Amino acid sequence: MLSPGATIGILGGGQLARMLALAGARLGLKSHVFSPVADDPAFDVCSARTRADFLDEAALAAFADAVDVVTYEFENVPARTAEVLEAHCPVRPNPKILALTQDRLIEKQFVRGLGIPTADFADVSDAGSLARAVAALGRPSILKTRRFGYDGKGQTHIREGVDLAQAFATLGGAPCILEGFVPFVKEVSVVAARGVDGSFRAYDVCENVHEHHILATTTAPAAISEATARQAIDMARAIAQDADYVGVLAVEMFVVADAQGERLVVNEIAPRVHNSGHWTLDGAVTSQFEQHMRAVAGMPLGSTRRHGRQVVMRNLIGADADTWAGILADDGACLHLYGKTESRPGRKMGHVTRILD
Amino acid sequence: MLSPGATIGILGGGQLARMLALAGARLGLKSHVFSPVADDPAFDVCSARTRADFLDEAALAAFADAVDVVTYEFENVPARTAEVLEAHCPVRPNPKILALTQDRLIEKQFVRGLGIPTADFADVSDAGSLARAVAALGRPSILKTRRFGYDGKGQTHIREGVDLAQAFATLGGAPCILEGFVPFVKEVSVVAARGVDGSFRAYDVCENVHEHHILATTTAPAAISEATARQAIDMARAIAQDADYVGVLAVEMFVVADAQGERLVVNEIAPRVHNSGHWTLDGAVTSQFEQHMRAVAGMPLGSTRRHGRQVVMRNLIGADADTWAGILADDGACLHLYGKTESRPGRKMGHVTRILD
Repeated sequence: MLSPGATIGILGGGQLARMLALAGARLGLKSHVFSPVADDPAFDVCSARTRADFLDEAALAAFADAVDVVTYEFENVPARTAEVLEAHCPVRPNPKILALTQDRLIEKQFVRGLGIPTADFADVSDAGSLARAVAALGRPSILKTRRFGYDGKGQTHIREGVDLAQAFATLGGAPCILEGFVPFVKEVSVVAARGVDGSFRAYDVCENVHEHHILATTTAPAAISEATARQAIDMARAIAQDADYVGVLAVEMFVVADAQGERLVVNEIAPRVHNSGHWTLDGAVTSQFEQHMRAVAGMPLGSTRRHGRQVVMRNLIGADADTWAGILADDGACLHLYGKTESRPGRKMGHVTRILD
Repeated sequence: MLSPGATIGILGGGQLARMLALAGARLGLKSHVFSPVADDPAFDVCSARTRADFLDEAALAAFADAVDVVTYEFENVPARTAEVLEAHCPVRPNPKILALTQDRLIEKQFVRGLGIPTADFADVSDAGSLARAVAALGRPSILKTRRFGYDGKGQTHIREGVDLAQAFATLGGAPCILEGFVPFVKEVSVVAARGVDGSFRAYDVCENVHEHHILATTTAPAAISEATARQAIDMARAIAQDADYVGVLAVEMFVVADAQGERLVVNEIAPRVHNSGHWTLDGAVTSQFEQHMRAVAGMPLGSTRRHGRQVVMRNLIGADADTWAGILADDGACLHLYGKTESRPGRKMGHVTRILD
């Protein structure tokens, strides 16, 4: 177990890194942020900074030598980066989760291998395999690049009438996966943590609403049955255990309701703190950010108990953040702004949380 | 009103400055910490740092020019320091509160002038005036230096048999105040904030237990009648209004219980965030630190609503902080460590908060 005063290295300097550094400081942990972007928001709240490219091996080695453990705020850490870091200090979560989650095909195979339902899927490497996949999975279905997709980027819908060769070309001819349509009634996620000792703690399953493929609101707890919630948490636990995961992870799931009742379909694993866990900053005894820092430092996990009857988190995307003065004046609204110097459409600028009693 | 992205200058680099900087970051505010002490804990979490003496006028001027507003974490800011800063940028709270609170005699005269009860007191400038004061106020009473006392330093009890000339000499012959004994049943404090617009918000009155003259625990709410709690908050409001105060302040009070019921006696004003408000970090919708940053930035004050039925904060003094691993493992305990490199007896190293439902 690391002691207070230890330094956590964080790869990436965005809002997740910033909130991790702020949470670490509560526990007396120092943060050293590594990012190639000069004005990244985490640089403002850490005790040491490295501005370098993620493939700059000398900078990575010096960074890893200067910290006690390295963690990351994003899943697209290059494999070589993790390899260089691991030669110098522990990297948590275990980078093998990166290989799993950077490729949608491998991720789905992994989840299925645990006996957990996912959407039907097929490997697509060219127009021919796309045609065979569409024949098998039907329309509508979704074609996604296997790698580097987020917030709706790198995907296209295969509806009736869509030309398959053109759809495949739209995604640049990259290796893809076709996912069958899931007629879901809501999207939920489990934000949970696993400790170095194998302990596991989950927050209340929460319900997510996306707009334009970007998370708009999260409500905790989700309006699902207790049995479904338990099942969701069991799925997240199985994933974390099998991956020998250490830290906070989020598992996004669809809830499908049919004559048999509710059932869950796992959509995606995020091997990091997650936007759908931001409500825990104000709405839970231990925030997901502190929980992650505890886990990667080898410390015991904290209580995930929720405050209030219901907690609602709303993202401030782009110009939404310009309404900050109104939010500050709204009694009971907890405002978080990420200190980004430039507002762009679709950019996550902050969030606001309300605890309802 | 300052906007997110603005820089708050903080005089002092201790745990209060650290927690102010962390709270400011939530709102997208940057912090620039000014302290003469190289390894001060606030330096680890701010975006800019000045290490210089509080009387270094060139450094003060450069600091004030680099920030949008200056605030402070301690009341013993030299008058000249405030004067230099005010020539360059706004200083909040209004430094006239410093003159009031740096001198126990002037502070008591100010509070009495508002019609608010204090202990009986008398000015003591030499052994002769001490003898007259003791004759008037009786024994036991407490002799305190007018300036620079904190955590029980700079004071001595005048019990039966104590030699007055010797007691006066113990305090170095400094100008003193003799305070009459107050037979209190408990100590409470009001932590509250006043905004630039004159708005006023108080947290629940909380109850404080001291050990060896240092705060040991704070419990919110205090076990006092609703009428007494309202009165306590009214007193704090009157003090803040009369001083044209902006920011968080704490007013420490004694509760005296006699045949007529409970009554309040104001003991001390702290023109800053206060140890007895640390429970608000985990136990209230808006922490005292965010509240102070909102106030000095000219932003609207936030909700002071408490989470849970009762919140208990315990200070970790000196070696208490060595028990951090046990506290982390204690489900529901919220640990805060201040990142101090050296533990000394009597030094505030951290605190732990529990929210009881």
